[in-house]
Amino acid sequence: MVSWWNRKRAAQLAAAWLASRNPRNASPVERLQLDDVSPELDVYLGQAAYLQLSLYETMGRAGAAAPTMSGRLVTGVLATTALERHRTIVAEIERTGGEPATLMEPHREAIDRFLLRTSGADWYESMLTGYVTAGILNDLFGNMLRSLPLDVRQRLRTVFDAREEPAVVQELASHIEQDPRIGSRLAMWGRRLVGDTLLVARSALAVHAREDQEKLEPVWTELIAAHTRRMDALGLTA
Amino acid sequence: MVSWWNRKRAAQLAAAWLASRNPRNASPVERLQLDDVSPELDVYLGQAAYLQLSLYETMGRAGAAAPTMSGRLVTGVLATTALERHRTIVAEIERTGGEPATLMEPHREAIDRFLLRTSGADWYESMLTGYVTAGILNDLFGNMLRSLPLDVRQRLRTVFDAREEPAVVQELASHIEQDPRIGSRLAMWGRRLVGDTLLVARSALAVHAREDQEKLEPVWTELIAAHTRRMDALGLTA
Repeated sequence: MVSWWNRKRAAQLAAAWLASRNPRNASPVERLQLDDVSPELDVYLGQAAYLQLSLYETMGRAGAAAPTMSGRLVTGVLATTALERHRTIVAEIERTGGEPATLMEPHREAIDRFLLRTSGADWYESMLTGYVTAGILNDLFGNMLRSLPLDVRQRLRTVFDAREEPAVVQELASHIEQDPRIGSRLAMWGRRLVGDTLLVARSALAVHAREDQEKLEPVWTELIAAHTRRMDALGLTA
Repeated sequence: MVSWWNRKRAAQLAAAWLASRNPRNASPVERLQLDDVSPELDVYLGQAAYLQLSLYETMGRAGAAAPTMSGRLVTGVLATTALERHRTIVAEIERTGGEPATLMEPHREAIDRFLLRTSGADWYESMLTGYVTAGILNDLFGNMLRSLPLDVRQRLRTVFDAREEPAVVQELASHIEQDPRIGSRLAMWGRRLVGDTLLVARSALAVHAREDQEKLEPVWTELIAAHTRRMDALGLTA
């Protein structure tokens, strides 16, 4: 299937989306508990670790409601990759002498609130969350690796790779093919997810580039283009 | 802490427990769908894969209700090991040319019913389930490996290792220390779990040793002794 989206269109959407939001009003990420010399790294690791932990829990809750056993297996694949990412990041926190629970805590409230809104009303929606929301945030965190110290960057090099996506696409696409109503519902749900997720993404990114928001536009363009490709793979318009 | 239990006491309990149950009445594991030349292997793999998948889901549901962030992290550790076991067994099914969903399906109803009864009313109980129930069943499936073909046995050699236990013990013991009411509640819950779990364990084992139930007594003794050690580690009597 050919998408009516392309890179330029994604750039336009990203610009419009950014223009519609005033960064001054963004709620700041809570960082007061952190007194390390490199607070950005702690913020990054704590946020990423908590996010992946919450994503696996969302999958765990969704799994039992899967309409098919293969759907349940795929939910397990999503949970596995979320937990692998979580464990790798926790190991990195421990390596730097940090306390995982302490670093995760400042992000709990915001991420809980976010996932409460976005975890989905049934298995189909939750799967799209595990694909779209996790996809955008994994792209973002993978992107932000660039601003981290070289050794951390090297150890976390492959952690956000989208190795779970083929399995999810195959499973969801087959459900959508069998019942077009699922497709139209998921297309709507995907639009809601992308809005909510980009807000969280911007708040995460703001910590790492407070003074130079304009330079981030290519990042948004990239995130939205990748999101479009993800929806395309399901035969849905972003 | 010294337990009033010992190996001999465990053997007595196992004998009493076995005597109180008539194997003829045990509900047979459904095997009609399987037409492989080695149905026992398929039954073993399907049951083990589905059980681990269900255990991770139980942990995923329990995680968000953890009273502390460290409790939540430990719930993630339990989910991780359950999913690692699940993935390894699924890989083994695929290696033999089997369809994981098909092999898991016959075990769904019984395991769902079992976990509905045993997944716990709150985080504390769910953690004990992830420790006690998973512990007994991992011991059992580890034990049953002996009756499988050598190559399978070698590939699954370490899959049921109890690598998650130290983290669970540390977390649960600290909660029990802080509030003795948690301890007495969990001791009761543990007794219920062991009864329900041994029933499932026996049903699983029956498939592999239909004609020689008596020879299995040492297996029960071992399972119960290990269970006692697990409860001991929490300062609770089994």
